[in-house]
Amino acid sequence: MPRTKRLFLTEAEVDELLDMGLALKALEEVFKARSAGEVYNQSRYRLPTGSGSYNFMSATWPKRGFAGHKSYVGGPGGVNFHVMLYGTNGEGLIALLEAGRMGQVRTGAASGVATNYMARQNASTVGIIGSGYQAETQLEAVCAVRDITDVKVFSRQRVNRENFAANMADRLGTKVVAVESKENAAEGVDVLIAVTNSVEPVVTGEMLEPGMHVNAAGNNSWTKRELDTHAIRKADLIACDDIEQAKIECGELMQAAETGEFVWDSTVRLDAIVAGLKTARFSDSDITLFESQGVAFEDLAVCARLYELALEQGIGTRLPD
Amino acid sequence: MPRTKRLFLTEAEVDELLDMGLALKALEEVFKARSAGEVYNQSRYRLPTGSGSYNFMSATWPKRGFAGHKSYVGGPGGVNFHVMLYGTNGEGLIALLEAGRMGQVRTGAASGVATNYMARQNASTVGIIGSGYQAETQLEAVCAVRDITDVKVFSRQRVNRENFAANMADRLGTKVVAVESKENAAEGVDVLIAVTNSVEPVVTGEMLEPGMHVNAAGNNSWTKRELDTHAIRKADLIACDDIEQAKIECGELMQAAETGEFVWDSTVRLDAIVAGLKTARFSDSDITLFESQGVAFEDLAVCARLYELALEQGIGTRLPD
Repeated sequence: MPRTKRLFLTEAEVDELLDMGLALKALEEVFKARSAGEVYNQSRYRLPTGSGSYNFMSATWPKRGFAGHKSYVGGPGGVNFHVMLYGTNGEGLIALLEAGRMGQVRTGAASGVATNYMARQNASTVGIIGSGYQAETQLEAVCAVRDITDVKVFSRQRVNRENFAANMADRLGTKVVAVESKENAAEGVDVLIAVTNSVEPVVTGEMLEPGMHVNAAGNNSWTKRELDTHAIRKADLIACDDIEQAKIECGELMQAAETGEFVWDSTVRLDAIVAGLKTARFSDSDITLFESQGVAFEDLAVCARLYELALEQGIGTRLPD
Repeated sequence: MPRTKRLFLTEAEVDELLDMGLALKALEEVFKARSAGEVYNQSRYRLPTGSGSYNFMSATWPKRGFAGHKSYVGGPGGVNFHVMLYGTNGEGLIALLEAGRMGQVRTGAASGVATNYMARQNASTVGIIGSGYQAETQLEAVCAVRDITDVKVFSRQRVNRENFAANMADRLGTKVVAVESKENAAEGVDVLIAVTNSVEPVVTGEMLEPGMHVNAAGNNSWTKRELDTHAIRKADLIACDDIEQAKIECGELMQAAETGEFVWDSTVRLDAIVAGLKTARFSDSDITLFESQGVAFEDLAVCARLYELALEQGIGTRLPD
């Protein structure tokens, strides 16, 4: 069995190799492949660790020659993420990657791909609720696929939203202002991003306006909700990165399904939209919603590309033979 | 988050650290812990890779402070196994182990523990059907828990069974003879081991004799069977390492359940026997059967011990910080 080129990539090395453009391209490619039936995905599952959980999600993409999984222990001590990458042609293990930064970028990129295929072409304004670690790449990705001129950000702590506005305006060269309420953040925007850990909905039906595209990218736990059921009902189309995973993790859809105000059969897989098999938007007044859970084949696609780049550029540490 | 002492252990390093005594002790400990509700286990699942499959299984043991999973790609190019070990108290990743040899020893050890708690105390003779990689540790483990004086081995290729007999007689200091048929291997023995990849049953009901203990340790695929349904019916007690996993992998039990000749509720978890909560054997004429699938918490228990030993002995390569 080939044993060459088994790499360990640290967070710093991944950060050096990875940018949003790479992630957007890798995800677009894997969504198309999935739509063609070339990708196998296993939903995340969790085991208790006493103070938190042990998380596990995996995927294979035989045509591309890769299999991989992400694992992490989450709890009070924080989280650190790893992806193991295997070759599917007898290579066995080929890489172990530290995958915190990777996850942040790929989660943003998933919303970027969704926005590109679901939002109005002329979308130019963004509201974002949440200003944490995952918020940065959410905004960066949306700005990469639309010509965004104005951004409003709300989060509960003033210092956080103001820092976020200043940092992101600088990084993206776009006007970013902190606002005083979530309602203000949503008012009049073309794209609304929810990226919080909120248990109670931060996006209500009243906040959704005709023509809006919403990325709900925050929680991935059935115990939490970012949108209320009125907002779910108002959406003309709901897309998921993976419906099986949404059925066990997407609190707002699970809640709406439980009360009979939403049916799972009405959701569309994002890959079908990307592949052109489904239409996301029939008019400029439709409200579209992307429910992002974060799935294994997204990790696999980005990490496969990172591995190839690392080899090309001679980055990473060889694992012992 | 603590980042120290993240180890990579190669097959050679694991082999240096590991012996059957360590594995037997680690498994006995984890079976008792599982019976006390201290262990969480996720059954193996598989995703297609085109030419084979991508396999995962995971477990957590918070009280002991460890979580871990095994992953491997199997196919025409062979298999190589890895275990990732995490600390559950904020340590994150602590080790990546090559786990082929580990799996071989732990699978033997599981049958050793089962034999110790299920076979007659005075068992002294063994028949073994199969002479492959996994057969060696099956026999070694049984010889570690009973005073075995005579072993008969059958496998289809004469050269294989004769080599196995010569090698194992030498290693174990026990009489080991190659025999001409599986029926001959089973005849009159106290412990019968089936460790084959057979699709068709190699152990039939006719071959089971009163007082016998059987370890069925070969296949872990629903497409295969080592015992026929008559043998399943003849067993007075059937123990599984994990019943959930047996329900999706144990071909002979699934087949017998399908035809209504066996009910899952009649099986007992090995951990309950080890913990003294269930009785395996009510008389010297009972026939007992251990159905081994190989489960994640077994890997976790052995690898946790290996990690500790590696630290103590300064073995392994540090992963980059």
